[in-house]
Amino acid sequence: MPDLTALAARIRAAAYLEGDFTLSSGLKSKYYLDKYLFETDPALLRDIARALTDILPPEFDRIAGVELGGVPLATALALETGKPFIIVRREAKAHGTARQFEGSLRAGERVALVEDVLTTGAQAIAAAQRLEQAGAKVIRIIYVVDRQQGAAENITRAGYEPAYLFTAQDLGIPKQG
Amino acid sequence: MPDLTALAARIRAAAYLEGDFTLSSGLKSKYYLDKYLFETDPALLRDIARALTDILPPEFDRIAGVELGGVPLATALALETGKPFIIVRREAKAHGTARQFEGSLRAGERVALVEDVLTTGAQAIAAAQRLEQAGAKVIRIIYVVDRQQGAAENITRAGYEPAYLFTAQDLGIPKQG
Repeated sequence: MPDLTALAARIRAAAYLEGDFTLSSGLKSKYYLDKYLFETDPALLRDIARALTDILPPEFDRIAGVELGGVPLATALALETGKPFIIVRREAKAHGTARQFEGSLRAGERVALVEDVLTTGAQAIAAAQRLEQAGAKVIRIIYVVDRQQGAAENITRAGYEPAYLFTAQDLGIPKQG
Repeated sequence: MPDLTALAARIRAAAYLEGDFTLSSGLKSKYYLDKYLFETDPALLRDIARALTDILPPEFDRIAGVELGGVPLATALALETGKPFIIVRREAKAHGTARQFEGSLRAGERVALVEDVLTTGAQAIAAAQRLEQAGAKVIRIIYVVDRQQGAAENITRAGYEPAYLFTAQDLGIPKQG
């Protein structure tokens, strides 16, 4: 079991920014947790992936990562566990094989969906629903940071099981950060 | 040094599809090399990343991967080498920190750009030019498959150094596949 307190401090040191930001929701914020700053540092990414293995379901067939922030995490978790992964596209690509997923997915596969930082969880829930529509069984949604703005509750309400490593408070950052 | 002949066979077995496809160029094809099928298999991805380390420049500071196909490769290569990576966005995001890159980049850093399957190399060259405009020095563009439709020549002509693992022929697939 990795030292989660030390890991939280490293994530904060790598990825917590102060300034003037416009969040994806359109809200303004004086804080921004830049998930890519903790995902693109290989030592930190590896330790996050190792910590995530502790909250993976006991049995599953495939990891799913949502474009774009979930992709480095899904990749690292796949390398750590030996399980294959799939990328959930934000929108279907028009060319090539025209899929809404990249990678393979077999009907009935048990999928662990991995995400980075969740606020309401809406995007993760939508991804899980698309995976289910494609014949998979999403057995857990695991993620690195819960901003404590409803994600875990919304995931549970949507019929999925949430598990996360840190709250925003664990990282010592404001909820809206 | 990994066994490149065996690796080529595994890539072909995992990712070479026959059917009716529309390529990103708009051209129709009976063949499609689905890079995501070799990138989402962790054993294969790890061995590709290990093979890529042999064509990395002797010294560099950071890996760059182009959204989306370059991201699993950049992640795996970062984990393999311990070097940090950066993601080159296809287009700048409008919210958050509004960058055309995700991850950090310091002026003067020597960057190894990693790509999956190149046809003309136009997208890789554009990514390299954007990295240079941001103050980096792109010292090599490494990639998994060269379709032998001008990528290496175009990269050289643009002033960058190309290095790749396989030609389409090495994988036993038609050039237009």
